[in-house]
Amino acid sequence: MKAIILAGGSGTRLWPVSRKNYPKQFLKLNGSASLLQQTAERLTKTVSPEDIIVITNNDYKFHVKSDLDFLPLEHIILEPVGRNTAPAIALGIKYCVEKLGCSEDEVIFISPSDHVIKPAGKFARYINLSEKIAKAGHIITFGIKPDRPETGYGYIKVRSRNSEFRNQKYFKAERFTEKPDAKTATRYLKAGDYYWNSGMFAFCIKTMIEGFQRHVPQIAKMLDMSFDEMAANFKKMPDISIDYAVMEKSDKVVTVPLDIYWNDIGSWDSLYDVLDKDKNGNVSAGDVLPIDTRNTLIIGEKRLISTIGLEDCLVVETDDAILIAKKGEAQKVKDIVNTLKKRGRREASEHLTTYRPWGSYTILEEGPRYKIKRIVVNPYEKLSLQMHHHRSEHWVVVSGAAKVAIGDKKIFIHENESAYVPKSTLHRLENPGKVPLEMIEVQNGEYVGEDDIVRVEDHYGRKHEKL
Amino acid sequence: MKAIILAGGSGTRLWPVSRKNYPKQFLKLNGSASLLQQTAERLTKTVSPEDIIVITNNDYKFHVKSDLDFLPLEHIILEPVGRNTAPAIALGIKYCVEKLGCSEDEVIFISPSDHVIKPAGKFARYINLSEKIAKAGHIITFGIKPDRPETGYGYIKVRSRNSEFRNQKYFKAERFTEKPDAKTATRYLKAGDYYWNSGMFAFCIKTMIEGFQRHVPQIAKMLDMSFDEMAANFKKMPDISIDYAVMEKSDKVVTVPLDIYWNDIGSWDSLYDVLDKDKNGNVSAGDVLPIDTRNTLIIGEKRLISTIGLEDCLVVETDDAILIAKKGEAQKVKDIVNTLKKRGRREASEHLTTYRPWGSYTILEEGPRYKIKRIVVNPYEKLSLQMHHHRSEHWVVVSGAAKVAIGDKKIFIHENESAYVPKSTLHRLENPGKVPLEMIEVQNGEYVGEDDIVRVEDHYGRKHEKL
Repeated sequence: MKAIILAGGSGTRLWPVSRKNYPKQFLKLNGSASLLQQTAERLTKTVSPEDIIVITNNDYKFHVKSDLDFLPLEHIILEPVGRNTAPAIALGIKYCVEKLGCSEDEVIFISPSDHVIKPAGKFARYINLSEKIAKAGHIITFGIKPDRPETGYGYIKVRSRNSEFRNQKYFKAERFTEKPDAKTATRYLKAGDYYWNSGMFAFCIKTMIEGFQRHVPQIAKMLDMSFDEMAANFKKMPDISIDYAVMEKSDKVVTVPLDIYWNDIGSWDSLYDVLDKDKNGNVSAGDVLPIDTRNTLIIGEKRLISTIGLEDCLVVETDDAILIAKKGEAQKVKDIVNTLKKRGRREASEHLTTYRPWGSYTILEEGPRYKIKRIVVNPYEKLSLQMHHHRSEHWVVVSGAAKVAIGDKKIFIHENESAYVPKSTLHRLENPGKVPLEMIEVQNGEYVGEDDIVRVEDHYGRKHEKL
Repeated sequence: MKAIILAGGSGTRLWPVSRKNYPKQFLKLNGSASLLQQTAERLTKTVSPEDIIVITNNDYKFHVKSDLDFLPLEHIILEPVGRNTAPAIALGIKYCVEKLGCSEDEVIFISPSDHVIKPAGKFARYINLSEKIAKAGHIITFGIKPDRPETGYGYIKVRSRNSEFRNQKYFKAERFTEKPDAKTATRYLKAGDYYWNSGMFAFCIKTMIEGFQRHVPQIAKMLDMSFDEMAANFKKMPDISIDYAVMEKSDKVVTVPLDIYWNDIGSWDSLYDVLDKDKNGNVSAGDVLPIDTRNTLIIGEKRLISTIGLEDCLVVETDDAILIAKKGEAQKVKDIVNTLKKRGRREASEHLTTYRPWGSYTILEEGPRYKIKRIVVNPYEKLSLQMHHHRSEHWVVVSGAAKVAIGDKKIFIHENESAYVPKSTLHRLENPGKVPLEMIEVQNGEYVGEDDIVRVEDHYGRKHEKL
């Protein structure tokens, strides 16, 4: 059995904390491990680590790498472009067959990377069960028994009274529905034979390939290519979910009801549900001072957040944006993100801190003709060989050691030492040491945009654009 | 007639914007002028600028100076310590008599520095009226006709049916009351002969001196000293308000009802009342994105503030602290400030930006062994000649020119140039130019507290502690 984790999403429903440049699955929202780490941890109770594959994209590759250090690098599959779940799963299947030499009878378990599920032990038993059912030729969807008329999830209607499934361990899936309105959701809840669609699946490789052949020839056709061809032509894939492409159409689909706690952390409201509350029903993280405040989520990053007389609110503070919402209305966060996108605002998709394979940089301050950054370079890492035409840079090391190339000059600078990089001068920054290098960069010039950069060699030392 | 403006207060009821190091009277809360500037502006409709005196303290001297540049420097009286209104007024009276040579019949108008009053024209007529009444030997308090059972103000009960005041332009003041509870306030409102105590007064010098002699001998005694002696012994003054010291006891007190708009901006709630609302009843300043938000005050400084489904809330964001309160509960802001004080938190009294006579500095970032500041030095200003034993400093000029003395070295550095100040080395920073000097300072060392500083000469060039 192989487990494929889908980790290419760039969810913005937890904006301003989750953004395209650092999305939900990599966040430590409910403890010391990221949601991706928790997902892998859960799976390793039944699947051995070397049987886990992660599908993500190039921007997130190093996040996956640092979150799942046990993972063989070649088990991180990169989608050239985002194309929803069906193409991603097809790419994963191709990878298992061609690169890992899986037989057509191999069972594959598909899991999102950003859900909370507990207890892990009980969940593991469901995975084992699903392997048996999948080997019998079924495509398995996992359903959650609803405990409220939730309008935020898709539902699966099952045929509950059904001779061939007398054991009740699983049901024939009859119909998949979109997110319902409140009235419909209430009806589903009453009916009793509707389950939340958890977004997890299990199937034999051949069963799913048949499914593609019968229902999405566009994708089936590409399965005949080699993995590399398929990846190269990935953008031609239809942008379509596995539910819509196969599940809703195939007659092989069954639903295994999961009697466990499941939460897709699809909004600040649902995060509030997951976390432990204090005696006033508040959830708070960071530097928080609540007065007469009840049933409120307060997540701070740096700044002091003081509240007075708040009830049923959500307060989320980041370096550059603050969200204050009435509980129950958190789904409107997407309206904010869309508005920001329309206005071309950086805050829609990027944090002030940008993570790179070599470390990270944070914009501390931006003025008319200057920009100040804190740069952290991880041990033994180096940045690309580069130059800027419109800005010069002043570097002051505040901790660690830096190996600096400026023009033909190569020097080491240490804590409390500085270096100056003139305009249009090739330079490279490197951390030769064993501890992170932390330095302050003061940029100066008529233009201090990120795109004023000419890369000659990337951080792996590979040649780039010509000068 | 002289007008004395009391501008020594360090109000924290508008925390986090108003703090001890930059209090309310200097803030531009309702337009382009600070409350102090608006106060002076109002008074100059009847009093000539050179007849205006401001009582404040040394920390605020340069704020007053830059807000009221028309004011002769010697008209800024500095209280050595804060001692409430009675001692302040006594000091002001002494100043008028000894330094300005006022006669005992001179009328003095006392005004707080942080209230909103309109229209100014009508207010001016009341001041003229009060001069006549004061000359007749009365001590005048100005009352505002209540339009709601306000619990946030003190009240004055007047004797409304009163032969000697048939003209109804003023009444005999019968009783001063503390802030009442809601029930009592409602009774006052019904009664019709209660007025809000506006904190403004007018009187002849001799009338008030008599008042002190009769009711507060402690203060009267000090009035026999010279102004300089009085200032030197100011800390011996009783900490007492003029209301309590004289108004409540004297039989000369009358109340002039003011039929104008008056607001003491005593809380975020009352600021909301003063400001113009949009069609949703919202008041917003800064980078704000409200969705389904009503009757809410949102004041942002730098960060994007997005709100969803808020109603009747107050949101105030500053560099280091955020306040989110339900409207009507803003008076609890003092609980927050007190809690912060108890915990020894800087945020209780200081902003990240500190204003000095020579300019200002802002803490951009603080780490274990470093601190980053943006320093702004006004044209022709200089800092003290100083040294630090535990930190060295890297300076990078981002705009303007700096004249820098480091040890015996004297150099000029300009935009995009830098300088290094080693530990325990005397240095001085100066702006010799015509535009503000803006520079980034990266401090480095085992201790980066503000108190690691040895001043040899202050910014006026006066010798300081010995080396």
